[in-house]
Amino acid sequence: MARLIVDISVSLDGFVAGPNQTLEEPLGENGEMLHEWVVGTKQFQEAHGHGGEAGETGVDDDVGAEHLAGTGATIMGRHMFSGGEGPWEDDPKALGWWGDDPPFHHPVFVLTQHAREPVVMEGGTTFHFVTDGIESALEQARAAAGDQDVSLAGGGQVISQYLKAGLVDEMQLHVVPIFLGGGARLFDGHVAQPPGQLQLNRVVESPTGAVHLKYELGGR
Amino acid sequence: MARLIVDISVSLDGFVAGPNQTLEEPLGENGEMLHEWVVGTKQFQEAHGHGGEAGETGVDDDVGAEHLAGTGATIMGRHMFSGGEGPWEDDPKALGWWGDDPPFHHPVFVLTQHAREPVVMEGGTTFHFVTDGIESALEQARAAAGDQDVSLAGGGQVISQYLKAGLVDEMQLHVVPIFLGGGARLFDGHVAQPPGQLQLNRVVESPTGAVHLKYELGGR
Repeated sequence: MARLIVDISVSLDGFVAGPNQTLEEPLGENGEMLHEWVVGTKQFQEAHGHGGEAGETGVDDDVGAEHLAGTGATIMGRHMFSGGEGPWEDDPKALGWWGDDPPFHHPVFVLTQHAREPVVMEGGTTFHFVTDGIESALEQARAAAGDQDVSLAGGGQVISQYLKAGLVDEMQLHVVPIFLGGGARLFDGHVAQPPGQLQLNRVVESPTGAVHLKYELGGR
Repeated sequence: MARLIVDISVSLDGFVAGPNQTLEEPLGENGEMLHEWVVGTKQFQEAHGHGGEAGETGVDDDVGAEHLAGTGATIMGRHMFSGGEGPWEDDPKALGWWGDDPPFHHPVFVLTQHAREPVVMEGGTTFHFVTDGIESALEQARAAAGDQDVSLAGGGQVISQYLKAGLVDEMQLHVVPIFLGGGARLFDGHVAQPPGQLQLNRVVESPTGAVHLKYELGGR
């Protein structure tokens, strides 16, 4: 069965977005610095349709490419999809802020309280909207992922919900050497795990200063 | 001049002590798990007067021994010294909860609002009580440290004060693979650093699951 893998960039002080998130600045102040390690890589440039020629190879590229290659479906929260909230007709970014050719190239399941038909984008990305909870989203994502894994992309609240429910199999944190000083926390009031529930699987140190930490979660 | 080095164990969710800290359980619920990587090491057993025979060698021991050997003085908050607060005559742990032969073996400067004479312990540890602020404590600790560095042991609030003041030279975080789910945060509302202020210097991965991350801070 497809594993559920958290994969997210986090500041050294534990934030996955900076303070004062807006529709214009969905990652908050300085939040884009969280992703600097990845945007210059070959795999990222290719996934975003820019061609890979200008992209850099190296450990950051390897880590990103590995995750992308292993992923058959993605789950994300509504806020990560559009930055908006409430009924879709009131959301200025109702088609998402991922562009016409989103970087996923596989089915994406968006957790929301507001039902709507799937949105088919270019390049193999279709956004499905799930209104009946995290377990349903996981079930649908697993069915879509086939032999590959399901990526849990964020944000922090969605990740915490899956962690609390004991549904996460693996977690890869890209720890970026910045302080954001506020914003959206990755772990905010997560229920404590019993001892021995997290196992460090891999540490990759990058010249960019990012540290890629991979943990396996027990308990299932 | 002696550098100021933060050295602290932190859970994966960013806590340096668990929830519900009490005088009997100063590290909070499950907080002692933060230090399991170090308590079994040879250098820790020796520093605590238990002899080093039973202690384990390896990367955790190396990391701990390196820090101890480089440290000539330590700064800590009142809460880390005794767990108490208010006037000393009302503090049931007024001599600290570090025992008769504390593991420091050098001068320790305790930040407090309540003045008192130094407390001389066995083994070279003397606790000095500083009531005129973090800069004064650093100045006194530097004078005491001589050619060695000053260790900033905690807790989180004290570390944040020094970070905000731009006084920290280096930071070593021992990231332990547990969720505490609450308690005392290492970084709680720290002022964001401008870009490029943190440089990853070293990553050491331990078989215990701890990851020892060392960062250099700019700005001085």
